Amino acid sequence: MLMKFLWPGKTRSAELRAVQESYRRRISRQIPCRIIETAEAKGLDERSAGKIMEIEAKGLEKHMKDDYIICLFDKGVEMDSAEFSRFLGKRLDAGRAVTFVVGGFLGLAERILERASFRLSLSKMTFSHELSRVILLEQVYRSISILKGRHYAK
Amino acid sequence: MLMKFLWPGKTRSAELRAVQESYRRRISRQIPCRIIETAEAKGLDERSAGKIMEIEAKGLEKHMKDDYIICLFDKGVEMDSAEFSRFLGKRLDAGRAVTFVVGGFLGLAERILERASFRLSLSKMTFSHELSRVILLEQVYRSISILKGRHYAK
Repeated sequence: MLMKFLWPGKTRSAELRAVQESYRRRISRQIPCRIIETAEAKGLDERSAGKIMEIEAKGLEKHMKDDYIICLFDKGVEMDSAEFSRFLGKRLDAGRAVTFVVGGFLGLAERILERASFRLSLSKMTFSHELSRVILLEQVYRSISILKGRHYAK
Repeated sequence: MLMKFLWPGKTRSAELRAVQESYRRRISRQIPCRIIETAEAKGLDERSAGKIMEIEAKGLEKHMKDDYIICLFDKGVEMDSAEFSRFLGKRLDAGRAVTFVVGGFLGLAERILERASFRLSLSKMTFSHELSRVILLEQVYRSISILKGRHYAK
């Protein structure tokens, strides 16, 4: 059982990074879990969007292997927390590593989305990509706590 | 134009409190904005849920006045960010203070929900009440930036 979280580059907001780390710690007490900050395009501005996405896609692909890939995608499937928990439980039981992928500020390249086993949306609302990372981690932590039948405060 | 955010007690997670504060600062550069930590029930455990909710409701009511009240509620209305932004813009233009109310770990008392002008859900997923505060602030910040036509990173 292994869970990975991939995203290009480090979360820049120090405050959000601290929250991210606190959820990662809590998850990894229950399940082996790694956050991998993949290659990031540096020194390019938004006019080079295609190039940035390409560099980021390559970086992400290096760590996707034959894992079960769940991409965050705003047009993906929405689930409530109970559904998400059952879904995640089944995927973990299946034995393959479960790898979540969150894009940078431009989102994910089409070919990464195509390779996803599942595309998940956290909300109808759009959150910043850095906040999305935090929300995803909290929701995964909540799911694992539901699966383990532990009390987890609303 | 005034926006208020009410919730019982201080956000306990230091990490989430730091994120909360960073969004509050950013919002208040654009619109007068206050976070008010209302009275909290202390020294009671979950068996006294009714009593806790009552104490918290009284604390919240003190600051609700005749504001336009938006309560976070998991069975409330979901909107995407563009809809939410238009909705918030209209409410702010109407001139009454717009007051968001987020419950504690037990949620909000029925009579607070009944007094709400609008009940908003952030997602089908359930987030911790402390994370919900942060998500709400981010989304309000995003909305104001959309309204002011500023660039705000995805």
